[in-house]
Amino acid sequence: MTPVVPPSVEVRDEARRLVDALAKPIGALGRLEDLAVWLAACQHRCPPEPVVDVRAVVFAGDHGVAAFGVSAYPAAVTPAMVRLLHAGAAGVSVLARQHGVRLRVLDLGVDDDLLDLPEVVTAHKIRRSSEPIHLTDALTRPEVAAAVSAGQVVADQEIAAGAQLLISGDMGIGNTTPAAALIAALLGLPAEEVTGRGTGIDDAGLVRKRELIGRALVRMGDRLTDPADPVDLLAGLGSADIAASAGFMARSAERGVPVLLDGVVSVTAALLVDLLVPGAAGWFAAGHRSTEPAQSLALAKLGLEPLLDLGMRLGEGSGAVAAVPLVRSAALLLREMALLSDVLG
Amino acid sequence: MTPVVPPSVEVRDEARRLVDALAKPIGALGRLEDLAVWLAACQHRCPPEPVVDVRAVVFAGDHGVAAFGVSAYPAAVTPAMVRLLHAGAAGVSVLARQHGVRLRVLDLGVDDDLLDLPEVVTAHKIRRSSEPIHLTDALTRPEVAAAVSAGQVVADQEIAAGAQLLISGDMGIGNTTPAAALIAALLGLPAEEVTGRGTGIDDAGLVRKRELIGRALVRMGDRLTDPADPVDLLAGLGSADIAASAGFMARSAERGVPVLLDGVVSVTAALLVDLLVPGAAGWFAAGHRSTEPAQSLALAKLGLEPLLDLGMRLGEGSGAVAAVPLVRSAALLLREMALLSDVLG
Repeated sequence: MTPVVPPSVEVRDEARRLVDALAKPIGALGRLEDLAVWLAACQHRCPPEPVVDVRAVVFAGDHGVAAFGVSAYPAAVTPAMVRLLHAGAAGVSVLARQHGVRLRVLDLGVDDDLLDLPEVVTAHKIRRSSEPIHLTDALTRPEVAAAVSAGQVVADQEIAAGAQLLISGDMGIGNTTPAAALIAALLGLPAEEVTGRGTGIDDAGLVRKRELIGRALVRMGDRLTDPADPVDLLAGLGSADIAASAGFMARSAERGVPVLLDGVVSVTAALLVDLLVPGAAGWFAAGHRSTEPAQSLALAKLGLEPLLDLGMRLGEGSGAVAAVPLVRSAALLLREMALLSDVLG
Repeated sequence: MTPVVPPSVEVRDEARRLVDALAKPIGALGRLEDLAVWLAACQHRCPPEPVVDVRAVVFAGDHGVAAFGVSAYPAAVTPAMVRLLHAGAAGVSVLARQHGVRLRVLDLGVDDDLLDLPEVVTAHKIRRSSEPIHLTDALTRPEVAAAVSAGQVVADQEIAAGAQLLISGDMGIGNTTPAAALIAALLGLPAEEVTGRGTGIDDAGLVRKRELIGRALVRMGDRLTDPADPVDLLAGLGSADIAASAGFMARSAERGVPVLLDGVVSVTAALLVDLLVPGAAGWFAAGHRSTEPAQSLALAKLGLEPLLDLGMRLGEGSGAVAAVPLVRSAALLLREMALLSDVLG
């Protein structure tokens, strides 16, 4: 695919000069300075506009692997959590309300028809659950294409509605298994290095999950060539929700709207996007470091350092939404602080 | 002094049970869970009330050591920054406005009469600048007592006005030098381990600063006995602004109002308070990790892990104010999330 236009180098340099001229010692705002410079470059505006309109979309789906003991919870929790997200009582719902972040939940592959929910939740459904990746491909290639396309459409909708910053959240029992498998495939790592405890599985569960990811990687065989084909990886190891998240972020980058990354599922999609659309990672910042080892490995590959490191591992976009005030601070500091020259007279 | 009444153990345990019952895997909100439990215990209420009323007081003062090459800026910057804080255009002013944190700046020891500012800024002034601590005592004992008392009065005022959470900020060229010296004295460490670059001094400045702190510690001699007398330490190595900050935090803890700590100056005062009023640290949480080595050493001694770690080193209370949304998130998550039992049906 065509590389994306990167954030403006000229505005980035201009913003760096402004940051250095503010009424503070050079570098005293630490990482907030880099964030302010990045925002200005993304917006092509120095100082950047206040980041008022932030939107998070939770892509939900079930995973065939959930029936094989890789999660602390049964798959039936996924539709229940989608209902809770729709009702505004999940963790990310609370954080989004606090920070004025608009939140949508979309069913891409939940193993339930969710007929009790309005069609806006299910309009982009691809199928009920993915297949178990250690036994067979998760999706067909046309299903991947449809899911990616759904994510692109949703990004276009949110951008048309005014989004200045987008977040992709996840919901789906078992989803850290395909995420870890995809990161292993993309970084050329063994299952041992990418497998984490997800919802909090015990040692036996961790062994099962690691083995299952290893089997999935072995099953892929020659398809894990370098550079791998992202669509084939999503078909083999992914899921409709991760494919949609990738489409969502790819379109955001193409449209020049910055994205704040969340946990391991979100970062998996980001890694795929950077392969699909070279340079897309220039539009991404990392909201938080989760406890999943694969997330840290993928962030390092993307060259991103997370804003928060609070041991969170809830998913749902919660870590990114919790970091939104820091992004807003960065823009406001650049807009509202006096200059050092005003102080020194 | 009498130990403070600690945050409620019963409510803490009740809040932990509630956290574990929320619609999420056990522990999935990471450090936000501990913060929520602490807030509930501080408020004697589970779930805690929303943390709406947050107040930050910036204690300003000049330091005799500033004339000896320990800062990248001249002491004349202190009154200029106090004026900027009063005008609402300093770094912390921007963050406080963003987060609805009420901000006051108080002149305890600025080397300027600040007659152009309203008396509310200067009402608690102790003196113009402290003495250079490597040569002589910074303050007299009566000056320390007056400054501590001023901080107590200010805490009482803010609590009477409705403060649910207090922050003590600092402003004063040279102030990381007395802070580092006090932390060295309190932790029994040599100057080498506590000295940082403050506003960003170069290598030669760092050598000078380290040597100056070493001389101040040698000058104190037998007065650095264990357990040291906090009032004597403040007289020998401190300043009016740090003494006032200590009084402010001590009174907050005595009144049962939690405090969010900022950088090295704020944490120095916190360490002194925990010596003055045993158990006071139970009322403190750490807002951020600064780049000053003494701050991390003091936080470790207090058993506190900071919420943010963004390489900030601005002072002014800025790191703590930047962390306020996380404290608010913690309370709201405990109040508004559904229970897992609702989801599992």
